[in-house]
Formats: sequence, C-alpha cells, structure tokens
Amino acid sequence: MNLPIIDIAEDFLYARIADRFENQIASNILKTGDKLLSLRALSKEQGISVSTAYKAYVELENKGFIEARPKSGYFVKFSPSQYPQLPVVSRKAKKAEPADVDGMITQVYQTMSKEGILRLSLASPSAKLIPEAKLNKAMAEALRKSKHSCTQYEEIQGNPVLRKQIAKHAFNWNGQISDHDIVTTQGCMEALIFCLKAVTEPGDTVAIESPTYFGIFNVMKSLGLKVLEIPVNPDEGADIAYLEKALETIPVKVCLFVTNFCNPIGALMPDHRKEQLVKLLAEKQIPLIEDDIYGEMYFGKTRPRTCKSFDHEGNVMLCSSVSKTLAPGYRVGWCIPGKYIDKVLSLKLMHTVSAATPTQAAVAQFFETGRYDLHMRNIRKALHTQCLKYIQAITAHFPADTKVSRPNGGYVLWVELNPIINAFKLFELAMEENISIAPGQIFSIDGRFSNYIRISFGEPFTREIENGLITLGKLVRNYY
Amino acid sequence: MNLPIIDIAEDFLYARIADRFENQIASNILKTGDKLLSLRALSKEQGISVSTAYKAYVELENKGFIEARPKSGYFVKFSPSQYPQLPVVSRKAKKAEPADVDGMITQVYQTMSKEGILRLSLASPSAKLIPEAKLNKAMAEALRKSKHSCTQYEEIQGNPVLRKQIAKHAFNWNGQISDHDIVTTQGCMEALIFCLKAVTEPGDTVAIESPTYFGIFNVMKSLGLKVLEIPVNPDEGADIAYLEKALETIPVKVCLFVTNFCNPIGALMPDHRKEQLVKLLAEKQIPLIEDDIYGEMYFGKTRPRTCKSFDHEGNVMLCSSVSKTLAPGYRVGWCIPGKYIDKVLSLKLMHTVSAATPTQAAVAQFFETGRYDLHMRNIRKALHTQCLKYIQAITAHFPADTKVSRPNGGYVLWVELNPIINAFKLFELAMEENISIAPGQIFSIDGRFSNYIRISFGEPFTREIENGLITLGKLVRNYY
Repeated sequence: MNLPIIDIAEDFLYARIADRFENQIASNILKTGDKLLSLRALSKEQGISVSTAYKAYVELENKGFIEARPKSGYFVKFSPSQYPQLPVVSRKAKKAEPADVDGMITQVYQTMSKEGILRLSLASPSAKLIPEAKLNKAMAEALRKSKHSCTQYEEIQGNPVLRKQIAKHAFNWNGQISDHDIVTTQGCMEALIFCLKAVTEPGDTVAIESPTYFGIFNVMKSLGLKVLEIPVNPDEGADIAYLEKALETIPVKVCLFVTNFCNPIGALMPDHRKEQLVKLLAEKQIPLIEDDIYGEMYFGKTRPRTCKSFDHEGNVMLCSSVSKTLAPGYRVGWCIPGKYIDKVLSLKLMHTVSAATPTQAAVAQFFETGRYDLHMRNIRKALHTQCLKYIQAITAHFPADTKVSRPNGGYVLWVELNPIINAFKLFELAMEENISIAPGQIFSIDGRFSNYIRISFGEPFTREIENGLITLGKLVRNYY
Repeated sequence: MNLPIIDIAEDFLYARIADRFENQIASNILKTGDKLLSLRALSKEQGISVSTAYKAYVELENKGFIEARPKSGYFVKFSPSQYPQLPVVSRKAKKAEPADVDGMITQVYQTMSKEGILRLSLASPSAKLIPEAKLNKAMAEALRKSKHSCTQYEEIQGNPVLRKQIAKHAFNWNGQISDHDIVTTQGCMEALIFCLKAVTEPGDTVAIESPTYFGIFNVMKSLGLKVLEIPVNPDEGADIAYLEKALETIPVKVCLFVTNFCNPIGALMPDHRKEQLVKLLAEKQIPLIEDDIYGEMYFGKTRPRTCKSFDHEGNVMLCSSVSKTLAPGYRVGWCIPGKYIDKVLSLKLMHTVSAATPTQAAVAQFFETGRYDLHMRNIRKALHTQCLKYIQAITAHFPADTKVSRPNGGYVLWVELNPIINAFKLFELAMEENISIAPGQIFSIDGRFSNYIRISFGEPFTREIENGLITLGKLVRNYY
C-alpha cells in the first residue's frame, strides 16, 4: 500500500484544523451528534491533503471530541469532561411514600395518548424513524404471496419464514438457533408471560432488575408472582454477586433480566458476566428469561451477545419483538424458550390460539427482502445521534447536580435529580406544560427512585424537543 | 294491493307441480339445500302463472319439504320424518376411561395443520367462504388512511372506528351499546381470558356448559380455576334449573356460557331463558361471561338476542370476534365488559399493551364500507345450505341408530353414535383415511361423550366431503 507522502508544512495544518474544530465544539457551534465533513470534502474545502484531514480527525478522536462510526463518517462526541455524573443506583429502598404505583402508572399511560403532548415518556421508536411505505409494501406482498391472503390461522409455532429470519439474525449475537427453536408471539410482553407461566405457579418468586420496566410489575401481580429486586450496576447490569447471595436464602423460581440496554438504566451486561450468570443459574437449575427487546439497538460496532448464546442446556428463554425496532403496532414478537418450548407452545395454543397472520407475514417479508437490515443500520445511527443530543441538552439546561446515564443502546436516559425532587410531582408539573416524562417511582414496586426521571430519546432531536427539555430544566430549577 | 286473479284450471296445476317436486325430494334427485327455481323461472318453464308457482311452493313449504329464505328464494329442506333423532345429553359422567383429555386435544390439534387432510374437525369458516380480495382491499385502504400506516400502538381501548361499528351492529341483537363500552382484543379467547381474570382468583369455580369447547378447559387450568359443568339441553341451552340448584351449595364465582349456537351442541337459548338467566345471576351477584362468537351465524330470519341485551346492571360481559365470520387469522375480537371495563382495560394494558393495529383497522374498514353486512348475508346462506347437506349425508351413510343435532346456526353438528363406539378410537381410524374429526371426549374434563363426534360443516359440501362422510359411516358400521 502506498502511503501518501506528507508535506512538512501540512504537519502544522492538521493541528490548526483540529484546534478550530475543538473550539467550535467547546462553544457549542458544533453540537453532539453533528456529522463532520467527510475527509474528502474537508480536504477540498481547506485545500489540504486527505491525509492531513485524516490526521486532524484522529487528533480530535484521540482527545475524545469526535468519533468515527463505521461506514458513516465522523461525528461530534461529548468530551468526557462535559458529561454529567452517572446516576447512582440506590441499593436500599427509601422510605416509601404513601405511593400508589399503580395509580401513577395509569396516569402516565393516559397522558401518552393525549394529542399535542411532547412524549418524552414513550420508550419506542418515533414514527418518523419507521419506513412506513416499505412496510406497507411488505404487507401487500405478504398478502399476495399467502395462499389465503393471511385470513387463516398460522401454524401454532408461528410463520415459518419469520422464524427462519429470526434464526438467521441470531447469528449476530452468536446464537446457534434454528427455526424449530422459535415460537412467535403477539409482542414481547406475551412472550414474557408465556415463559413466566411455563416455569412458575402463583406464589412463586421471580428475580428481576431494579429499577425495571413498570409493565413487569403489573404482569407479576396479574400472575400472582412475588418479586425479588436485584440492583443494576450501570456498567455491568444486574448485580450477580447480590443475586447469588440472595439465592442462598430466597427460593427464586426464575430470573427475568433485560441484559442488553435494560430499561430504564440502559446498562449493558458485559459478555463475561452474561456467561457467569448463565453458569450460575444452570448450576442452581433456575431458568433465566432474557428480555432482549433492546438488543438490536446498539450504538457500538457489533451486536452485543445474549445470555442465550452461552446457554448449552436450554435453560435460557430469550424473548424479543420488533416493537422497538420496526412497528410497535404490529405486535410481532417471539421467544426462544429452550427446553420449555412444549410448555410455551401449549400456552400459546390455549391463550391466543395463534398470533395474527398478516402482521407476522408482513414482517417476515420485510426481513426476507433485506429491508430490515438496511432499516436497522439507519435507525441505529439516528438513535445514537439523538442520544448524544438529548444528553447534551439535559446537561445544558438542567441544574448542575443532575446526573444522566450514558447508554450504548436503547431508547432511554435515566436522569437522577436532586433528592429534594419528587419525580411524580415533576411529572404533573410537566404535564401542565404538555410534556410527558416517566417518573422514577413507577420503576419499582414501592415507589422508590422518587428523584429520578426517564427521558426517552426515541424522537428525533428538534427545536421543539430542545424547548421541551429547557422547560423541564426550568421546572426542576424552580422546584427548590 | 291487486291480488292476481286465479284461473280455476291452474288450481289443479299447482298441486301436480308440488307433487312432482315432492317425488324428486323423496327420491333424492333434489337434495337438501338445493335451490329451487325462482317463481318467475318456474312459471316460465312450466307455462303457468307466477301465482300458481307460488301456490305450489307454499304447498311444499307447508308440508315441510322446502323453505323460503328471505331475499334468497326457495330451498329444499328436510322433511321432519327424514331427520335422525336428536342426540341425548348425558347428565351424569360416565365411568371415565383412563383418558388423558389433554393428550387427545393435542393429537387432534396436530392433525389439523397436516396437509391433505379432510378437516371435519375445525369449527371455523372455510377459506372458500372468505372474501379475501375485498379484505385485502380493506387492509390497503386502512393502511393508507392511518396517520402512521398502522405501525404505532392503538389507543388502549382499541381502534375507535371498529368500536363504533361493533356498537352499531349490537343494534341487531337489541343491544344499547356505545363505542365507549367496548374493548378490542386479539381474538375472542383473549377477551374471555381478560373477563375471567377480571372477576376471579386462582382457586375460584366457574360454571360452564357441558359439553363445551375444549379450549375452555385448558384456559381454566392455566388460570388455576375450577370448573362446574352445567348440562346443555339442545333446545334450551344451559340448564338454568340445574344451575340454580347448584348455586345453593357451590360457590360459583362466574358463569361462562355460549348462549347462541354453543359448541359442540349448537343449542340456541331462547330469549325468555336468556332473560331468566340474567335475572338469576344479577340476584346472586354472579357475573356472566357470554361468549357470543357464533351469534352472527344464524340461519333464521333474525339475529338471536344476547343475554347482554337483558342486562341492566353491567353484570354481563359479552365476548366475540370475527374469527368465525370473517378471518380467524386476523385475531380481531372484543368484549363488552359492563361494569368490569376498567379491570379489563388494565389487564389488556399489562398483558398485550395493545392489540395489533393493522388487522383491527382493516376489519374496521371492512365494516364501515358495508362489505361486512354483504359478506354475512352470503356466508349465512352458504352455511345453512352446507348444514342441511351434511345432515343429509350423515343420515344417508351412517348407521340407523345415529343421532344428529339440528343447529339453527354455527358451524358444527354433534353426532351421537352407538354407545359401543369409542370416538377417540374412531378419530384414530379416520386419521388413517386422512379424515380429521373431533372426538366427543375432548369436550368434557373427564373424557365423557365417548360415543359422540363433532363434525364441522364449515367447508362447502363437495363430492370429496361426501366421500369422506361415506368413509366415516363405513368406519362406524365396521366398528361393531
């Protein structure tokens, strides 16, 4: 390979150019997530060689101001010094308020469907990020291809093309999965319920992360299950040492963990800890339900692995869906229930007979034609940018003692406010300004996390969003 | 109104023509369900006046050989003397065989999806009766009309257009229902589960009909509920006197009845008994879950009423779907849960978040454009004809001691065979001939009804079906 010959004079140039960029970033002219010129464009614009442009970017990258994203170019990244602190996860329950968590959840949900609300509470993709026309096309093609236009029941295990595609994509997380291992469901929640029902009886105890998605608590209650909350470390996911200790005294029947970008903390469990968890639970003969609904939403270079990929005994039941990646309204999910597959199949048969045929077939078609992969590349880039922009705006407009999570995937930021703040009260104040946020209380069974809020960055960052975050910041400031 | 003047000579004619038809019916040249010539065509063909043709048909109608169907013309009907006896419903459990009903259900289900099987076991409409092209059109229109192409979550209560249409159609069964009273679900089974969960805890007892749809038992087991079986009278539906007596000693928490064309008996509960049932249960403060999934499939002139139409206290929870009328694969159902609506809504939210958006929207569009009403008129006619033809074939080809139900709606015939017959054994023998039937054992918890089979008449009556029934008849004959 011929390296370009470097002109000595240009050797100073790259540093000057890097300096100018640095100043622009520091003074917020270039904002987090902004895309920089391509090497070629920069070289042309500044009359420098491509190699000089490259050296300037490497310099900025080394300093942590920008980052290269594969096949996308260079983007402004936060300098570590600009980051707010990470939120601390409380291990002990604070004195619970006379909190009716259920009531809070209902209230938060009701606001979600109101018109004219800035929805920072919804952890799913913005409609703007969905390739609607292509999905409609996939639906039309699927109806045309189907023998009876998708009017008849699916086979019990689910659409075979969809199952093949899911099995194919499992390759990305090191999965050795065949279509026979997969059962489709109506969204991830149904998959979780079938897996829970497959291995529990009412009265059993389930270990879950804390904080976690509030829907989980309701399902537990509805199934008559007890909950053991395991703290989550933002860098390592569920605290395995804590779990191991708890298992000595508490008869946990099954664990339900979101190992990739758990909601609301956004923690990603590292591979070695996934392996450790799978091993521990296999030894104790406790099944693991792995909710991998955010696993495809990674910002890094590769798809994070799953616990399922370390499972040699069929003890891990992976659940997922396209609700966070493609179309929540389609209600297309699945599980890979390992050795519990017969039980799950029989639950599916008795509870829903079969999943909806047209939506499954449309998603299968969308996968099969390669549209899914293309869409995922786009949406991951968009979300990464949005994530950085939201963090920057919160940093800029919230009080200095605010702490924000730094997720490497998913849809949400977990924001720790001054302990004086009651997040549900803040939610009510924000609703008066037509802004919907998720108060921390709804992420635990006893209304803990009362000074935390969850902010979704699913919506593209616009002036309207920025104004919303400015307003929110003011509400927090005015609180004390 | 000017009545036509009747020529005396023609007065003899009508009787002669009626006689000729009678002979043709007796000798099976005209078969049950065959359509007769229109009055105009008959008058033309025979060179008689329309009024003479009319008199001939009235004569045949009075004798019970033919029947007039509104807006459809005249059809060959069975003469009552040709009917086999009605099956007797056993009140007491026979000595149960070492029967694993679950295993039987699984086996029957597995055969349903096999290729090349004559499926007389499936109680749903034949794909041949579904207006697929029009439904596809409705889907395309619905996607186009939807703000985000149906990719987003529905509002929790369900598609508003669909709910309005369901409310409108409730008029046909004397219902005073608004769209606010309705919650959409993913098929009728999900509606039943939400209603059951809304009013029971594990360990509670539910009164159901016997025999009943086997799916019900599995759901009860899955929800940890106990079952009290109430006998069904083919002419009156669930035995209310029996229920009333049982309620004196057994703490029934809720009743779940299929009041219109219950599966497998096909009984239609008369209006006065529906009213009586609603009153009884309101007094005892026991909620009634009314599964009305077959209610639209009536062969008579008017839609049968529902218990819900007699309910003034919100004590009746009606459940239904389009799975038996339009598209089982769409999984579009609903419930009208009366005073339990908040509980049902919260169950829906926690279990499935929301029903699938595209299929609901497509069905809403299909209703709204009037296509549903047209389709229902067609499918009802087709099913009525099929019902009569199947009964005739069974009468012709099964042993003389066979008894067959005479449903006025629905999809199934309940056939009582000689007590020597083991229906599950017959099912296995039939499967060797690639014919799938539903053995009676799977319609009770303890494998009763072992000499009954359920035959679905959802498939249009063809030579293939007739041959299948001939083969079945032979298997029964060879059994003893």
